[in-house]
Amino acid sequence: MRYLNQSEAQNIDQELFNEYAFSVDQLMELAGLSVAVAISKAYPRTGDGERLLVCSGPGNNGGDGLVAARHLKMFGYQPEIYYPKRPNRTLMNNLVTQCEKMEISFLTDLPSAQEMNFKYRLVVDAIFGFSFKGEVRAPFDDVLKTLKNVKIPLCAVDVPSGWDVEKGNPEGIQPEFLISLTAPKLCANHFKGRFHYLGGRFVPDLLLKKYELELPDFPGTDPCVLLE
Amino acid sequence: MRYLNQSEAQNIDQELFNEYAFSVDQLMELAGLSVAVAISKAYPRTGDGERLLVCSGPGNNGGDGLVAARHLKMFGYQPEIYYPKRPNRTLMNNLVTQCEKMEISFLTDLPSAQEMNFKYRLVVDAIFGFSFKGEVRAPFDDVLKTLKNVKIPLCAVDVPSGWDVEKGNPEGIQPEFLISLTAPKLCANHFKGRFHYLGGRFVPDLLLKKYELELPDFPGTDPCVLLE
Repeated sequence: MRYLNQSEAQNIDQELFNEYAFSVDQLMELAGLSVAVAISKAYPRTGDGERLLVCSGPGNNGGDGLVAARHLKMFGYQPEIYYPKRPNRTLMNNLVTQCEKMEISFLTDLPSAQEMNFKYRLVVDAIFGFSFKGEVRAPFDDVLKTLKNVKIPLCAVDVPSGWDVEKGNPEGIQPEFLISLTAPKLCANHFKGRFHYLGGRFVPDLLLKKYELELPDFPGTDPCVLLE
Repeated sequence: MRYLNQSEAQNIDQELFNEYAFSVDQLMELAGLSVAVAISKAYPRTGDGERLLVCSGPGNNGGDGLVAARHLKMFGYQPEIYYPKRPNRTLMNNLVTQCEKMEISFLTDLPSAQEMNFKYRLVVDAIFGFSFKGEVRAPFDDVLKTLKNVKIPLCAVDVPSGWDVEKGNPEGIQPEFLISLTAPKLCANHFKGRFHYLGGRFVPDLLLKKYELELPDFPGTDPCVLLE
């Protein structure tokens, strides 16, 4: 399977919106749902109300995290959300309202790594996605330091945050779980965790052909597939 | 399980948008996906490119049909769409573009019942939903006459079209498959087909409690559940 460089990932994203007329609402819903399903498959519930922590960044990767949290709640988990930087976008505001009204707690402060180990089954990194470039700014520099030290499973959405989208980051977080959305980015070559899923089952055949992407078959009606 | 009368169904819909801040794009995407998954479960593919026909009406029920067609295409079926009355709404226009760009054909004329029996594995009725009242107007009066005569499975989305949402319609179409979205409407008491699914797994607990709805558990991460 061919992995995408950063500009290909950005171009596919733009084509989905401009040529295929998808709305961000639609694709974020499908992407976030696939994240929630993949996490449920990799870490099946062992009881009611298991707590998860979702860390959301300011962009669309953070939105995928908010959607995933809502679906994880529907699946019987007890997610909590840390979402410190909130752009004033209608969609993002609505995603927050949906979560609040579904009784998902938003944390004002990030717990320490020790607190996370004690309280949560796993933590989701939905901070930065395929558009990330340059330096990690506050408060996410501290967030990533904390995530680097957790002992519970760390689940990255699309790109492990703080990684170069193409080259990865040997000094950065090393998640146990990664779900690539649409198609894996080049940095996924450096992923050494246990579970690498592909999600975001919405890329039209013509677009796959145009970018010479040969994705594995998704089983049945599943929105995600475990990669080798 | 308690079934909804028409005004309850309309109130829940309004609350999802106004109180819970969902967008139509989001809920239509999840509803249409659940329709596609339920159809795939009830009528598993027996080969590649099996043809299905989706008949979409002018409102949101028709939109659910367009979304379902797109996901059925992702699942390996070969849907075609009959969508004769097209309101000029951005979302509906975009859903059409998405389908067209995914190489789903739109029919200009409805085939006869005999042609449908020959050509399609099943036909989806996504014409009218829970807002329907009064008389069926052209061209859907003729469409329903045709659907009444098909021998292939007829799959109704939310409410069999032409049925009174509460009282049903003994003279109307009698689908083999019904997927109730959010919760069954009262007319589902008159459904005598083989498969009754519940889809639209997005209703928050607080809303279920407010309307005293006790829905069955959805299995695992499935977006739909087969009712007894």
